[in-house]
Amino acid sequence: MLAREVVEELVQVLGRENVLTEQEDLLTYAYDATAALKHQKPDVVVSPISTEQVAEVVKIAQRHQVPIYPRGSGTNLSGGTVPIQGGIVLSMLNLNKILEFDQDNLTATVQPGVIIQTLNDEAAKHGLIYPPDPGTVTTATMGGSVSECSGGLRGLKYGVTKHYIMGLTIVLANGKVIRWGGKTVKNVTGYDLVALFTGAEGTLGIITEMIVKLIPAPETRKSVLGVFDNLDKAGNAIAAIIRNKIIPATLEIMDNVTIQTVEHFVHAGLPLTAEAVLLCEVDGYKEVVERESVLVERILKEEGAVEVKVAKNDQERDLLWLARRSALPALAQKRPTTVLEDATVPRSKIPEMLKIVRKVADKYNLQIATFGHAGDGNLHPTILTDVRDEDEMKRVHLAVDEIFHGAIALGGTLSGEHGIGVAKMDFLSLEFGEAGVEALKALKEALDPNYMLNPGKIVRRD
Amino acid sequence: MLAREVVEELVQVLGRENVLTEQEDLLTYAYDATAALKHQKPDVVVSPISTEQVAEVVKIAQRHQVPIYPRGSGTNLSGGTVPIQGGIVLSMLNLNKILEFDQDNLTATVQPGVIIQTLNDEAAKHGLIYPPDPGTVTTATMGGSVSECSGGLRGLKYGVTKHYIMGLTIVLANGKVIRWGGKTVKNVTGYDLVALFTGAEGTLGIITEMIVKLIPAPETRKSVLGVFDNLDKAGNAIAAIIRNKIIPATLEIMDNVTIQTVEHFVHAGLPLTAEAVLLCEVDGYKEVVERESVLVERILKEEGAVEVKVAKNDQERDLLWLARRSALPALAQKRPTTVLEDATVPRSKIPEMLKIVRKVADKYNLQIATFGHAGDGNLHPTILTDVRDEDEMKRVHLAVDEIFHGAIALGGTLSGEHGIGVAKMDFLSLEFGEAGVEALKALKEALDPNYMLNPGKIVRRD
Repeated sequence: MLAREVVEELVQVLGRENVLTEQEDLLTYAYDATAALKHQKPDVVVSPISTEQVAEVVKIAQRHQVPIYPRGSGTNLSGGTVPIQGGIVLSMLNLNKILEFDQDNLTATVQPGVIIQTLNDEAAKHGLIYPPDPGTVTTATMGGSVSECSGGLRGLKYGVTKHYIMGLTIVLANGKVIRWGGKTVKNVTGYDLVALFTGAEGTLGIITEMIVKLIPAPETRKSVLGVFDNLDKAGNAIAAIIRNKIIPATLEIMDNVTIQTVEHFVHAGLPLTAEAVLLCEVDGYKEVVERESVLVERILKEEGAVEVKVAKNDQERDLLWLARRSALPALAQKRPTTVLEDATVPRSKIPEMLKIVRKVADKYNLQIATFGHAGDGNLHPTILTDVRDEDEMKRVHLAVDEIFHGAIALGGTLSGEHGIGVAKMDFLSLEFGEAGVEALKALKEALDPNYMLNPGKIVRRD
Repeated sequence: MLAREVVEELVQVLGRENVLTEQEDLLTYAYDATAALKHQKPDVVVSPISTEQVAEVVKIAQRHQVPIYPRGSGTNLSGGTVPIQGGIVLSMLNLNKILEFDQDNLTATVQPGVIIQTLNDEAAKHGLIYPPDPGTVTTATMGGSVSECSGGLRGLKYGVTKHYIMGLTIVLANGKVIRWGGKTVKNVTGYDLVALFTGAEGTLGIITEMIVKLIPAPETRKSVLGVFDNLDKAGNAIAAIIRNKIIPATLEIMDNVTIQTVEHFVHAGLPLTAEAVLLCEVDGYKEVVERESVLVERILKEEGAVEVKVAKNDQERDLLWLARRSALPALAQKRPTTVLEDATVPRSKIPEMLKIVRKVADKYNLQIATFGHAGDGNLHPTILTDVRDEDEMKRVHLAVDEIFHGAIALGGTLSGEHGIGVAKMDFLSLEFGEAGVEALKALKEALDPNYMLNPGKIVRRD
């Protein structure tokens, strides 16, 4: 329980209206979008409107040794924003301004509470795009997606969030403010703290402003759907597209369980008996899109697709992508609890990974649907379960464990885009060894020696 | 002076032929390509052939508290490899194998002693490229260019070294070996140590293996030269190209001093009286190259170029690029000492930065030629001087100081691609403030508490 004095100091800095302490208010900050994690209410929720206010809050927290948890929209999927030790939740939703659009330098300067889609909408007015495209694009904040280094559907061609963050303003654990990077395309001054803080899940410092890179919007795009009666063939088709030097904007896969579920949900005309579909979109200049889409169509056929469908117009295209984007919400309706993983492998290992997931599902008698970003090797095995079924949840944990081990054995990683948070901490030594975990801990303690910033995420205090 | 015992331990691990102690051998490791820095011979030079040997060398160095300096070809430009406190130079030139080409995942796995051009030549056989393209591409090593995060000519469209490093094997200061990242396009597991070690100049750990990203080679390319009688017009033309949503592969600038010097050196037909030339190359599919080159030509004319020349064939193209690539060697012949800077600004500030450089040259009565990567805002003001002329060198230092202040005032950075090394350490607080320098120091001490790895670079021990 927080001392009354702390709340009063926070009110002094932020005004009473920006400091929440009522139980019914606190309840909504006790969890994020991660399934099957213990909820924990914070003691207080504060909403600063400036970097200076954030710095003051951090100083108060340090003075009283109260943990502090930055939070955007809470859409994250590894427990990264849950205030597991109580303390102060720092809601960034009032820091929600796009501060500048710089067309000559192709940058935008934004506050952390800006919703990604809001930035996209503004960028579109200038003929530009901000490429990172997580599934939660319409609700997630920029601050959250930078702190988690979100991926999404366009990673293969365009990269992920870290490739678009050029500069950061950061409040350190000591309450001091630093600015790193900027609008220059090149910058090798000092260690790359912009990269270090991107994806650090708010455990090293609090991001209060960011300069992001924008790029010209592609002139046009075309989507091609390939239907496969065999997982290996689908996997080979992925490899064949890349071997033919085509880098699609998106290259997605859905397995049979996902296809069936999605089709009942949106009626996009997906073939219910297919083992897998690949959904591929190429974009760019119209001549390029024409050449590449014809080539993709041919490759899919050569690799044994039983059906290949090229979207003839925007309406057909949008329906295909609605199907893909509905995968998670459709699956989530089937059972009370949806455990969504993101173990990621080199793209050539996709068929093997799909087989591992299927074997695990059989072994533990679980319903697992798999979809995801095939071009990135970033699959989402999705376990449909019920958190109230203790026996089944035990099997879920064993299954997740085996999926992680499988991904790492294939040269993959624990998390392609959801982060470590609290959910995957125990698996870190599997990927990095003890020496690697020690290095993480040393870095954490260098910048946050008292474990005040989002404690209990990524690294654990001894 | 190193204890005899240390050398004997090194010989035990590496064999006598890989341990150099003769003065004439040590002399060639006393400097790098940076002008006007104090030389310092190491006590011993060792050439390991495996990660394990590097780890053993680090353990010996730690046991005896001897500094250790990783070194590639020594082409770096901020004193990063000079063994300023004596000790062990760790030459990586025998770790020079390309270990794997993975066409399905578009990666290569290489040791640090591989020359960048060697990787390029191998990649070309597979129709792929490794885009980072520093001026020293034919001599610099992969390890050096990753440790310095080299930039070069293709940064605008393709990014810099850090955008192509997917995985690293690192020997830490405690002699332990960690592996980070891998062949997955997405990876958010733990802090991004791949990014942190890229550009860390060997001060945080020693890179012994790297997985790099390759991309399909562009189908074709076309170069366009724009001649300007006015710096502002050249600057506006740069901005106009970007505003028209064209991202050229390269967009270079040379000022009058550079043009005159280069023309006498290579006879490429550059106009001797021009205030500036812009050299722009677009690449990609042939249809794209056609569209974009026509547009670039039109924009250059609209922005007031007095002459626009499109290279009609490879021979004409190669001559133009020979001219650009000869800028530094040509300038270096004019005076005994060439002080090459790389202060970098947002690209919209190029005209202002060029004027600052010109004003500084006048004020301190120095000959400064400027050329560089205009599309990146990454200029190379090059001071032609003589290190033996004490009075002139004083003015050189004052000029460099003023150029740095100017770049930072324009929202730029101390170094776009040459790194901090010993040459720019004293200016770091100008860019980061004291709080930022403290953060750098905290990170250094977290991973190398005894300052054993490349000491005296980037951060200074108190």
